Amino acid sequence: MQRRRFLEKTGTLAGLATLAAPAFAQGAPSVKWRMSTSWPKSLDTMYGSAEQMCKRIGELTDGKFEIHPFAGGELVPPAQNMEAISNGTVECNHVLASAFIGKNTAFAFDTGLPFGLNSRQHNAWMQHGGGMQAMRELYKKYNVVNFVCGNVGVQMGGWYRKQIKTVADLDGLKIRIGGIGGMVMSKLGAVPQQIAAADIYPALEKGTIDAAEWIGPYDDAKLGLHKVAQYYYAPGWWEGSASITAMVNDKAWAALPPMYKAAFECAANEQTTKMLADYDARNPDALKKLIGQGAKLAYFPKPVMEAAFKASSELLTELADKNPDFKAVLPQWLKSRRDQASWFRVAESELDSYTFSAVVKSPQ
Amino acid sequence: MQRRRFLEKTGTLAGLATLAAPAFAQGAPSVKWRMSTSWPKSLDTMYGSAEQMCKRIGELTDGKFEIHPFAGGELVPPAQNMEAISNGTVECNHVLASAFIGKNTAFAFDTGLPFGLNSRQHNAWMQHGGGMQAMRELYKKYNVVNFVCGNVGVQMGGWYRKQIKTVADLDGLKIRIGGIGGMVMSKLGAVPQQIAAADIYPALEKGTIDAAEWIGPYDDAKLGLHKVAQYYYAPGWWEGSASITAMVNDKAWAALPPMYKAAFECAANEQTTKMLADYDARNPDALKKLIGQGAKLAYFPKPVMEAAFKASSELLTELADKNPDFKAVLPQWLKSRRDQASWFRVAESELDSYTFSAVVKSPQ
Repeated sequence: MQRRRFLEKTGTLAGLATLAAPAFAQGAPSVKWRMSTSWPKSLDTMYGSAEQMCKRIGELTDGKFEIHPFAGGELVPPAQNMEAISNGTVECNHVLASAFIGKNTAFAFDTGLPFGLNSRQHNAWMQHGGGMQAMRELYKKYNVVNFVCGNVGVQMGGWYRKQIKTVADLDGLKIRIGGIGGMVMSKLGAVPQQIAAADIYPALEKGTIDAAEWIGPYDDAKLGLHKVAQYYYAPGWWEGSASITAMVNDKAWAALPPMYKAAFECAANEQTTKMLADYDARNPDALKKLIGQGAKLAYFPKPVMEAAFKASSELLTELADKNPDFKAVLPQWLKSRRDQASWFRVAESELDSYTFSAVVKSPQ
Repeated sequence: MQRRRFLEKTGTLAGLATLAAPAFAQGAPSVKWRMSTSWPKSLDTMYGSAEQMCKRIGELTDGKFEIHPFAGGELVPPAQNMEAISNGTVECNHVLASAFIGKNTAFAFDTGLPFGLNSRQHNAWMQHGGGMQAMRELYKKYNVVNFVCGNVGVQMGGWYRKQIKTVADLDGLKIRIGGIGGMVMSKLGAVPQQIAAADIYPALEKGTIDAAEWIGPYDDAKLGLHKVAQYYYAPGWWEGSASITAMVNDKAWAALPPMYKAAFECAANEQTTKMLADYDARNPDALKKLIGQGAKLAYFPKPVMEAAFKASSELLTELADKNPDFKAVLPQWLKSRRDQASWFRVAESELDSYTFSAVVKSPQ
């Protein structure tokens, strides 16, 4: 339609050629990519964020750079969601990098670690503490260029059939938990279990497992776990935050015009705020509803937190000893964690703690 | 270079015309805007964020949509930085909306309020709690379309020549503080002073004032206030966070092609994460240095926090009574604050508090 009007105005194709020759028009190919996410569509905050990111990239390029998101498993089996990017079968994905610690434990830095950086601190580390540079070097080995494109914040500590009153209560506890968190749980005597989301409910109901961590109130409510394990523990100390990663095949990336690269990166950064805001907006109501339906909110006792912190510190050292990639990143990450903690406790955390407590007591 | 290769491939300009006629090229006008910021270039985090935003918009539009940022006062006097957007003298600005509460106290919601939403909560309210909609309606009266484009986080409570041990110590205290925070300070018996940044140091040195709030460690260090007022109080309870606003003249906005609108909005949202990460990365070192140079870190005693919370709650009610625009926004803002507080204290704040304390004590 617009093209026809333009042709009417300029009269000839030769006239059009002269006027329609800005640098962008020449370099504006139609690019179609696929994005293999790790999320079932029911995880609408995460899958929705991937969709929003793709939509935004389209808007930013007048529809020329089209990325089609796919739900987990639709394009490739979940376990091959990184391999597919490495070998260029799929151009990009939208995942938790920690799902691939089987390849390299250092990917855990890209998502989050026990008692690690909260969402803001993670971004500060990535941008200014050497994090993004270190992650780019790591991913390079896998022919991948990585982007931060979302965050879940601190998650919940999961659903338990019995109360956790002491560290001893973790002994022999069969808990559905993966990754680095599972390794720390092992050190505390628990027995981590790998169970798909759909199987958690029946496993808890039958008592095949004693506990299960999933995400936070909004996503947990969908699984209905409060009906089969009533104690809902906080906080999910195994990740200071869970940052989402978009991995891009390096050749596909290199072939993009600069404007499309800017669109991808800017849309990814935008979702870092937006996904978190989605979760922050949805979790409060979900938590209220869960409690209304019988969930019993509980907090890990201080000795459990202390034991978990100690075990986590030991694990970080062990992982560094076993993996040079992990060892290369750990010192700068620990420095950022210490610097950030020393500052956040002064202003941010001090005001947060006071305000949250005052607000819930306030009649206003 | 790419163009030449392309011509070699297609052979003729007529061939080029057919291929180079995407809708974008036809509809891609060169748009040049000016952005009047409120920041001296010495506030390099805030001014730098405005620069980054403009640069990104250029990258996203292949240089077609150019926005030139100006330091505070370069284009228009600071007090007219909103007026200039309203009447279209300047297309957009980059400011703290709270600077314009003289026009309408409801602009304070757009920046932050005493014991208010922290940076994440503010974004959640804006996106999902009705905040953006309410602010858009408010700004509409001034021919402005608003965007969130940065955040400073929780600031410090300022520099004091004497310790604040009780609420009575605030009585008659001449403190450089503006806006809503100044109104609460008045209620607590203090005497707020309006002093330009450059005049704070001599005023504190001569004892014309007893205290002054500015921003946080990174920016405060530049003014050297620790040399003339050694007690550095935390936290800056008068804003739960300070969100930065880009105001755009509504006619200039309406005239933009959809792609440029997307570029502006996406680049603004990107800076919401980026500016905060800049501050979070720079404040820790600055705080350490200030303490090394004699600054004495102190915390407002609990009775002072309680008195400030009470006075703030009263002020919110009074402002609502005086201004229908403030009254229209307050209930949804209070609901968001309550919802967010009830959730954040469970997981996020619980893990933050434990981790920050454990990390600073940890040998790792």
